[in-house]
Amino acid sequence: MNIIEIILKKKNKEELSYDELSFAFCSYLNKSIPDYQMSALLMAITINGMTMKETLALTDVFIKSGDVYKFNKKVSDKHSTGGIGDTATFIIAPIVASMNIPMAKMSGRGLGYTGGTIDKLESIPGYKVELSKEEFYNQVNKIGIVISSQTDDLVPLDKVIYSLRDVTGTTESMPLIAASIMSKKIACGASYIVIDIKYGNGAFIKSVDDAKEFSKMLLSIGKHFKKDVKTLITPMDSPLSSSIGNALEVLEAIEVLKGKKCPLRDVSIDIAASIVAMAKEIPVKDAKILCKNALDNDNAHKMFKKWIITQGGDLSKLKVSDKVITLKSSLEGTIDAISAINCGRLAMKLGAGRETKKSKIDYGVGIKLLKNIGDKVKKDEALAELYVKNLNIKLTDEDLKIFSIK
Amino acid sequence: MNIIEIILKKKNKEELSYDELSFAFCSYLNKSIPDYQMSALLMAITINGMTMKETLALTDVFIKSGDVYKFNKKVSDKHSTGGIGDTATFIIAPIVASMNIPMAKMSGRGLGYTGGTIDKLESIPGYKVELSKEEFYNQVNKIGIVISSQTDDLVPLDKVIYSLRDVTGTTESMPLIAASIMSKKIACGASYIVIDIKYGNGAFIKSVDDAKEFSKMLLSIGKHFKKDVKTLITPMDSPLSSSIGNALEVLEAIEVLKGKKCPLRDVSIDIAASIVAMAKEIPVKDAKILCKNALDNDNAHKMFKKWIITQGGDLSKLKVSDKVITLKSSLEGTIDAISAINCGRLAMKLGAGRETKKSKIDYGVGIKLLKNIGDKVKKDEALAELYVKNLNIKLTDEDLKIFSIK
Repeated sequence: MNIIEIILKKKNKEELSYDELSFAFCSYLNKSIPDYQMSALLMAITINGMTMKETLALTDVFIKSGDVYKFNKKVSDKHSTGGIGDTATFIIAPIVASMNIPMAKMSGRGLGYTGGTIDKLESIPGYKVELSKEEFYNQVNKIGIVISSQTDDLVPLDKVIYSLRDVTGTTESMPLIAASIMSKKIACGASYIVIDIKYGNGAFIKSVDDAKEFSKMLLSIGKHFKKDVKTLITPMDSPLSSSIGNALEVLEAIEVLKGKKCPLRDVSIDIAASIVAMAKEIPVKDAKILCKNALDNDNAHKMFKKWIITQGGDLSKLKVSDKVITLKSSLEGTIDAISAINCGRLAMKLGAGRETKKSKIDYGVGIKLLKNIGDKVKKDEALAELYVKNLNIKLTDEDLKIFSIK
Repeated sequence: MNIIEIILKKKNKEELSYDELSFAFCSYLNKSIPDYQMSALLMAITINGMTMKETLALTDVFIKSGDVYKFNKKVSDKHSTGGIGDTATFIIAPIVASMNIPMAKMSGRGLGYTGGTIDKLESIPGYKVELSKEEFYNQVNKIGIVISSQTDDLVPLDKVIYSLRDVTGTTESMPLIAASIMSKKIACGASYIVIDIKYGNGAFIKSVDDAKEFSKMLLSIGKHFKKDVKTLITPMDSPLSSSIGNALEVLEAIEVLKGKKCPLRDVSIDIAASIVAMAKEIPVKDAKILCKNALDNDNAHKMFKKWIITQGGDLSKLKVSDKVITLKSSLEGTIDAISAINCGRLAMKLGAGRETKKSKIDYGVGIKLLKNIGDKVKKDEALAELYVKNLNIKLTDEDLKIFSIK
């Protein structure tokens, strides 16, 4: 087999066989084909797409590139394609674990507007994000809940391909994203998988049609690999919660676990219920009642504390910045929109996200929204609190364009 | 400027500005952006194309990447997009030079079926293909004709980009090919440029429509850079001459210079006449008569000998292999086609071309066709002579599928 012929086939919109995909990607992993040939192939895939057959083949090649975890009971996993203020994992995992459905999850750091799940967990002093395979297995068996950073033995192909995609303009490819997400969930041993597909101006998928297409892809992969997969399609035009930032989002999740009623609670219940419905083989509406109960009777909150303590975290030491700037309304009216993408940009400017891989995140900074869509506001009324590192930070009118008031 | 944003723009089919193209390509030349980013950009260009504005900009960036030659008189140049048995340069250059229209040409080696112009010239013992800038200028002034290999000081960007395209499946891009060809012609100081665009199964351009589109591109580039450019669009389904191979093609060109009537003579006159018409500002039909005369009165042939001797070549030592296999007809009928691409493949198998950059060409091998399209043949009649290195060479029926007889 010849890598140039494989690249040319994809350039000419022809379907690649399992053997061709396996040859190209495995050769890249063992360094027998260079970066520049793989990046040309990735660009051809990004522009010309892949058939479902190709996507299934690539997912399989990804899975087989490393270790595959097997637990002695069925475990669950969830994934969100990313949104601003999305801290639902911290609510969902304790809900399902409190019902004896283990959640064994590996997660990543964030590149872009705000931190990823691992960054948010690292804002809790002491929390150990790096676990060995043995520690990972043990914690699942002991308390039924574990979230650690991705280990090197699982899907090593994803790691090298993602690094290359990140610097070659080839991140926005649905089949490549689908293969990346699903291979990691499957290799990590999940039997029940829920994927929350975000669409809108704050997400990489812009339209509901693209979200539906992506959902179809994920469900087909699940069916092929004999896994129970459910998808949710949720809008991401406004932030999911009223906190954006790392420690701020953990605190927000704790509020929900303590009983706060808000959209973040509703989304978390929906996702948790999808897992519970699969695991207990009951209707989703019945599963929802169980999930609400788990929040209302404090079981989920207890499970959350048990999990964080077991993994070394000390919630009493979780801190946000004590330097706060209040954002006030310049006019009177009704809030008709809160821009997720602008919240993300502002959060990054404040230091909550990474501009490059080497940037350091400031866990204590971020935005706390004080108003919701539909709220009436007066001139000079407080709209949001900005937790900053330095009160002298220069913010332009453009930076502060979060609320649209009419 | 950011290279990833530039790659993404092209991936999303947006137009790149002059500054963006210049930044990306110049940064690649000075090694401040890596191969894998340039190959992603080249694949996005190959699939999504470039606008005329982008193609003009890229051509300019290419030209400015190196030296630009300037002669004290107007010189001509010609280029063929490549065909099997295309040795017209050896006839055209002496024709126009014999009328005091200098031809100053840099050319390349071949990769693929048969050698390039430089390989064919190297089949003449003693011919010096590498000339300094000074030697190049002197020979133009002295005898009005020079053909050497590409020097490093002209369009260095083309060299590095071509090497990368060659190994990343990105050779088949009209705007990239147009920028590559035209930048070299313009940097080499040509005022009159004729491009022979070959289309058909033996050429990289398959259809006449694509050839017309490519022609439009070349003419626009000529207009933009204030150069007289003409294009010819000629089919390349059957070989241009009855000889395919390096030394064999030189011998065939000499036959035409000595007066042989054949399609190669006609094509050479057409191209030469385009140059003469531009340089003398006369109608093409009048220029054709002058070109025919130059062949018939032996002026072109004399000029050819002067050129080869001046550049060190000894035509008396030009040799083809003395080992010949005769290809005979297996049936009776009329020849209705001669496949250019199959001639090319066979010539390469015999050793006349390069499979990889490191392959060594055998100058003395090749194919001599003894029959033309329309000829009637009997069973066992000789169709072609194969000049081989070794009479034991194994040739399959597939290898020998040159003639179609009905």
